[in-house]
Amino acid sequence: MEIKSPTLLLDEKKCRNNIRMMTEKLKKQKVRFRPHFKTHQSIQIGHWFKEAGVNSITVSSLKMADYFATKGWDDITVAFPVNLRETERIKALSKQINLELVVADLGVATRLNSMVNNPVNIWIKTDTGYHRSGIPVEDTNTFEKIIKEIDSSPNLKLKGLLSHTGNTYHTTSVLQIEKLYNEAVKKLTGLKNRFSDRQTKLQLSLGDTPSFTRVSDLSGINEARPGNFVFFDLMQYHLGVCSLDQIAVALACPVVSKKKKEKQVIIHGGAVHFSKESILDKNHRKIYGRVVKMEEDLWKNAGEENVLTALSQEHGTVQLDNKLYESVNIGDLIYILPVHSCLTANLMKGYLNLNGEYLDHLEGVFSY
Amino acid sequence: MEIKSPTLLLDEKKCRNNIRMMTEKLKKQKVRFRPHFKTHQSIQIGHWFKEAGVNSITVSSLKMADYFATKGWDDITVAFPVNLRETERIKALSKQINLELVVADLGVATRLNSMVNNPVNIWIKTDTGYHRSGIPVEDTNTFEKIIKEIDSSPNLKLKGLLSHTGNTYHTTSVLQIEKLYNEAVKKLTGLKNRFSDRQTKLQLSLGDTPSFTRVSDLSGINEARPGNFVFFDLMQYHLGVCSLDQIAVALACPVVSKKKKEKQVIIHGGAVHFSKESILDKNHRKIYGRVVKMEEDLWKNAGEENVLTALSQEHGTVQLDNKLYESVNIGDLIYILPVHSCLTANLMKGYLNLNGEYLDHLEGVFSY
Repeated sequence: MEIKSPTLLLDEKKCRNNIRMMTEKLKKQKVRFRPHFKTHQSIQIGHWFKEAGVNSITVSSLKMADYFATKGWDDITVAFPVNLRETERIKALSKQINLELVVADLGVATRLNSMVNNPVNIWIKTDTGYHRSGIPVEDTNTFEKIIKEIDSSPNLKLKGLLSHTGNTYHTTSVLQIEKLYNEAVKKLTGLKNRFSDRQTKLQLSLGDTPSFTRVSDLSGINEARPGNFVFFDLMQYHLGVCSLDQIAVALACPVVSKKKKEKQVIIHGGAVHFSKESILDKNHRKIYGRVVKMEEDLWKNAGEENVLTALSQEHGTVQLDNKLYESVNIGDLIYILPVHSCLTANLMKGYLNLNGEYLDHLEGVFSY
Repeated sequence: MEIKSPTLLLDEKKCRNNIRMMTEKLKKQKVRFRPHFKTHQSIQIGHWFKEAGVNSITVSSLKMADYFATKGWDDITVAFPVNLRETERIKALSKQINLELVVADLGVATRLNSMVNNPVNIWIKTDTGYHRSGIPVEDTNTFEKIIKEIDSSPNLKLKGLLSHTGNTYHTTSVLQIEKLYNEAVKKLTGLKNRFSDRQTKLQLSLGDTPSFTRVSDLSGINEARPGNFVFFDLMQYHLGVCSLDQIAVALACPVVSKKKKEKQVIIHGGAVHFSKESILDKNHRKIYGRVVKMEEDLWKNAGEENVLTALSQEHGTVQLDNKLYESVNIGDLIYILPVHSCLTANLMKGYLNLNGEYLDHLEGVFSY
């Protein structure tokens, strides 16, 4: 299998290990696992979850829900505030599968109530401190109104409170991740207890890879929706959430030019392959990826000086140490761990595993 | 035509005006126009260039060259250092069309010489100060060797010196753009004159939208390869290169939630639609787009307070002024000018014009 142009490699063993690690942890902690499939968007990778016992999933769009529903996934949460322009799609999908939707506004609950004619489970998006979307956990008045609206509906079934503690991505230590997670659970539990006289107790659903990878005690919640852990990436590594060895995807890029004085190589691999997501390394330098060395079909860490320092649409500039620079020739491939694997996978639209087999991605031409 | 999910709108009139403006300017200045098609990657938009008299184009990958070659474009420069892993594709394409390639290393010239068996025009990538790739203009020794190598080849035909003055993107005024452009032309002319005893004079090819939009005197060069001007974007606007009214693409995004206290709306429109390219606005705030108002199928400027301030994979957070916030309802569409139109178009993989017709993009499922 000769790689000719930028290609996203997937190490199936690392990926399956990541899936196993999370599945076992959540099983032990008695938390229902509803992994977010927006990271990989792949039927084939989804199948590895199925083999690990997963039957319920999370996605971030109805398009993604449709993709997985056509391949037998019948319990899907769309963890994105309901888009009222897609009500026909919601109605069609709710007839086929157990569909769970997210509501973040009273008006939307009202509109949904008047519109759906099949059972749909509803989660109320709750803002516990990330401040991206959702009703602030303190705004109990709005929660009361929405719950009343949903409870009055023949088809909407209230599942509980859903939150994304994405503020864990702004931390600098595991202690901070634990602190944010525990604060979120405490706030959600307080809110849930206000409605403890309901016949069905509200469930709590949380989702982010840093928390579910690093927090040891997950008691008090019902459902976990991490996604990124399936591949991990440099962002997670810099947060202290994974090791470099756990990162399961690397972009193989042809070297097209060398710059001797600067010890840089130019690769075919740019913003349309990696995305423009960047991170600051230890030296406060903006980087877009980190080089690994391929040895006998396995990639191994290279020194931390070897990084992707600039991106144009198709070009990448890779800074190398002297030794690596001298060993690389034009026409070789260079392998790079991405900063944000979700965005890189979305741009690359498919995977090549280390046995030379292609795996699907929703955005790919070779999709299932 | 009801828009249900994020959709890239194209104002054909603005786009054709941009094409006309550049075509007329270059014609008047007697500079050959070889527009870069990496921005739009569309056969249909390419056709508007053909109608304006353009027959030669630039692309940034062989995949893109193939796409346009199959639809009748027979004079294509791949303005990216030759990828030696794609030699079979180069050989096939050079039999079909007038193919012009870019060489940035002596070793690559040698390899190409031993490989091609059809005429291929070669440009030597010259670094005049952008420092992304190419041979530094001062390194006359390497230029002499490469020129000797190419001149010794039966199939490689030396066209001249090609440079991308991408450093114009780091300027803050038109004067600075002019200064950088003139310096580049002076350096290239000096280098060219060193080889004035060759039978065929070296040509000079330059490419960047800021220069070709803003510099008034383009004498001394043979070819211009700007691309972004076809749509322009917020980055060009902030450089002073275009007006907001000239930006020909806007992303239509459904409003899915409102945050009254913050005067923010949450849209379906995230990093997988816009890209993570950002820019600092006047208040040094990082923004990912700017809101326009749609009035009778034409978008008009909204105040500069109305901007896209945060992006997740699918979510966008839009900050609005009081009046606009009050006028927007959940379920409405909001229209946003992108920071970097090339990357946004590449992610959106197609266009919807204001008459409700879809236009192709190389990456799209509905491609030609």
